[in-house]
Amino acid sequence: MSSFSSFDPRTGKPGSATFSDASPAEVLAAVERATEAFAVLRSYTPAQVAAMLRAIADQLDAASSSIVPVADRESGLGVPRLTGEVVRASGQFRLFADVCEEGSVLEAVIDHARPDLAPPRPDLRRLLFPLGPVAVFGASNFPLAFSVPGGDTASALAARCPVVVKGHPSHPETSQLCAEAILRGIESVGAPPGTFALVHGRSNEVGEALVAAAGIKAVGFTGSLRGGRALYNLAAARAEPIPVYAEMGSVNPFVVTEAALAARFDAIAEGFIGSMTQGTGQFCTKPGLVFVPDSETGRRWAALVGSKAGETEASFLLNAATRDALAAQVQRTAALAGVELLAGGGPAPSAAGFTYPATVLSTDARTFMTTPELASEHFGPFAVVVRCASDAERLELVRGLHGNLTATLHAEASEVLGLAGLVAELREKVGRLIWNGYPTGVAVTHAMVHGGPYPATTLPLHTSVGTAAIKRFLRPVAYQSYPAELLPPELQEGNPLRIMRLVDGAWSQS
Amino acid sequence: MSSFSSFDPRTGKPGSATFSDASPAEVLAAVERATEAFAVLRSYTPAQVAAMLRAIADQLDAASSSIVPVADRESGLGVPRLTGEVVRASGQFRLFADVCEEGSVLEAVIDHARPDLAPPRPDLRRLLFPLGPVAVFGASNFPLAFSVPGGDTASALAARCPVVVKGHPSHPETSQLCAEAILRGIESVGAPPGTFALVHGRSNEVGEALVAAAGIKAVGFTGSLRGGRALYNLAAARAEPIPVYAEMGSVNPFVVTEAALAARFDAIAEGFIGSMTQGTGQFCTKPGLVFVPDSETGRRWAALVGSKAGETEASFLLNAATRDALAAQVQRTAALAGVELLAGGGPAPSAAGFTYPATVLSTDARTFMTTPELASEHFGPFAVVVRCASDAERLELVRGLHGNLTATLHAEASEVLGLAGLVAELREKVGRLIWNGYPTGVAVTHAMVHGGPYPATTLPLHTSVGTAAIKRFLRPVAYQSYPAELLPPELQEGNPLRIMRLVDGAWSQS
Repeated sequence: MSSFSSFDPRTGKPGSATFSDASPAEVLAAVERATEAFAVLRSYTPAQVAAMLRAIADQLDAASSSIVPVADRESGLGVPRLTGEVVRASGQFRLFADVCEEGSVLEAVIDHARPDLAPPRPDLRRLLFPLGPVAVFGASNFPLAFSVPGGDTASALAARCPVVVKGHPSHPETSQLCAEAILRGIESVGAPPGTFALVHGRSNEVGEALVAAAGIKAVGFTGSLRGGRALYNLAAARAEPIPVYAEMGSVNPFVVTEAALAARFDAIAEGFIGSMTQGTGQFCTKPGLVFVPDSETGRRWAALVGSKAGETEASFLLNAATRDALAAQVQRTAALAGVELLAGGGPAPSAAGFTYPATVLSTDARTFMTTPELASEHFGPFAVVVRCASDAERLELVRGLHGNLTATLHAEASEVLGLAGLVAELREKVGRLIWNGYPTGVAVTHAMVHGGPYPATTLPLHTSVGTAAIKRFLRPVAYQSYPAELLPPELQEGNPLRIMRLVDGAWSQS
Repeated sequence: MSSFSSFDPRTGKPGSATFSDASPAEVLAAVERATEAFAVLRSYTPAQVAAMLRAIADQLDAASSSIVPVADRESGLGVPRLTGEVVRASGQFRLFADVCEEGSVLEAVIDHARPDLAPPRPDLRRLLFPLGPVAVFGASNFPLAFSVPGGDTASALAARCPVVVKGHPSHPETSQLCAEAILRGIESVGAPPGTFALVHGRSNEVGEALVAAAGIKAVGFTGSLRGGRALYNLAAARAEPIPVYAEMGSVNPFVVTEAALAARFDAIAEGFIGSMTQGTGQFCTKPGLVFVPDSETGRRWAALVGSKAGETEASFLLNAATRDALAAQVQRTAALAGVELLAGGGPAPSAAGFTYPATVLSTDARTFMTTPELASEHFGPFAVVVRCASDAERLELVRGLHGNLTATLHAEASEVLGLAGLVAELREKVGRLIWNGYPTGVAVTHAMVHGGPYPATTLPLHTSVGTAAIKRFLRPVAYQSYPAELLPPELQEGNPLRIMRLVDGAWSQS
């Protein structure tokens, strides 16, 4: 059995607590308890689910002052940012509680019987029900907001699905503290203890055992393309295949027009560098690929971005593996023919902490198109600026993109009508289109989409952030001609919960 | 290149028209044309989509009198049933046109900017957009309603996704006539000709080439578990995996209580036999597994079902392979220890047509639980009646079921409160729960669910029948801080289309 500790990214030193890989039997036991819990949880009323989610939020807030210093030591992300992550996580649980009570998330639909039709049509009533126990794989880059108490856990619990988290080995102590807070919340409302479990693991076998367990009915994952795809393949090969909602790599194209450069030359460079280096460039939505005009202004702007990158203070990557992977990748891509290094680069610094300098490359569109390695994600403070000789060339570049989480467009109001074609092509490639802004920062709202075509995710029909994330863990069931006593309240004739429903094709809340 | 003809199930004779397997180049050309069409279709307004769907419906109706005799010769299903299938298919296109115009299917959500929050929140607006070209695999058992002009084609087109159908080799002439009608409809409204294509094929390679084509973004399938799973595996192994909505096998458990037998002994037997033999037992929702009390009444009822089955007139299976597979399967299962043959069985009749007698087996719960082969779908006029010694044993049987499309429960009003536990367990296994009715007959309405846990489908979050089927081919995109001129009308501030939207968490149609 493999045992491991976290490392302080600022010093490279291991933490004092050690953790062991969960054994296959421990993983199966957690899934078994989740399956038992599901038999209770699936029948929870919206009020019961909401109470549980709010109790978890309260426990997370109460534990914030113990969690944040540990998370800072394990991630090097700083106390303000991590305090914000706790607020985001607890706020997410509370928002999802509101959504459960509001009720339309379960998509109640009623079609009354039509005996007058040929063939006659029976009474049909549809509602969404939980899938069953969910496996969650937390990300390293948000040790709170996208990890144990993150969006996947919150949305699965809101759907009344028990959760088994495979903790990220970069922050096991943080994961443990968060799991304990969640379990206190669950216990405080009398929900089944198997509703939530954390299993630790550094080896792939732990996660593989979890995904292979027959009791698991869906997987939420945030992390690398390699890791997400491996779990996707494993889930697809099960006797009963299950959906894997993996949010993976993204280069997040960032397009700047000549007019935008003319109007906001410095501001866009400054905003871009801030977004590119936020969290040491370890946001899923970090803009890593910039398209600028191949003009004197475009070249000057790229040079400015490079010089601003060179001035940024060194910050810390999450672990040695991330730092080493970035250094190796940059050394390869910076040396490619037709590629210019504008800032950073070089081997990993010999300092004890896990730093790497903010790095900017520059190239022309033809080189980019013929050099696939430039289009792959460089996880960390990195971007490549691509000069486009014409609007047509820019459109060709966009059409050639893989799927991404976001695409950002900086342009001026005067250009709007001429940009419809570009926006239509960008839309095919992403889950979120940003106008004159920056892609980092993913608000938890109803309209948010944190998703997109492969390889951004394994299933582009869904978002992993925002209230719609709950739908990933629900499936529809129709009741045909059922007696009222056996219908859930959401489907009863009088609409006792006063939820929005589609009744005989018309929306109604009465 | 393989060439083939259909066969008349009544005589076993081949039709005069011959068809050839589409070559890989022909498949890719159809996908290429679909991809080109998508660049136009994706920007269609709801009114344009609705006009296209209605034009297709009109052409199908106009061609009904040419299509039905051909479909009857190729399927043996009879003119009244096939005429009904055309009505269903054209009605489905018209209903989906209404749904496109009503607009809420695209799930417009608006969250206005909140500069007052920390961090400030940008304006976010979400809408569903089409995935891209869709591959459809029609079923043999409904040569119209679940084939070329069926629900998968209608829902993909309603989502603004071009469609390439791989026609079922049991009814190529019918498929060809339907494809021509659809293309006339598409042409009549000036939609791109690549919006729809039919490729013929008897060998698996044709379908495999279609699913492997990079331009295909989703797959709709109705057919066997083996076929659906093979396509699922293929799609999951692509460089870019894509969703496969395969509706496959189902035994559709049918539970009858002692009280129901006491009250409606003959009526339930009659209704059951009608449902079991409808369309020669070749409905996906055919009830093939019956749970009755192991009582004197239960045994008498099973005997009555057997005797009624023995009295049914022989009808025709769709092709020789279906008939031979059923005969071989029944001969194995009827010979198993603890299994009694109540009606039918035996080798395939030597008559020229593809008949097989309605077959009923009977066994006890213990035998059923320890004999997995009894739980697998027998496609055709077949059912197995399982006697349960107690309610607890019945519950154990239900808990051991695989996923199914439907579960039917016949019980009396006086029993309702005692059945909640049973219904909760049945619900875990299916997409549709039927009370005192029969599962065959799947109405195209808003509330219908034709889906369920594996192996009923490969993705239980969806339905392949009803208006919600459209959602399978849509994915969300959020616009952040976008100018009004570049937003689709569904997301514009004034709600020009007057569609139902979620605005700042509240439902609004104004």
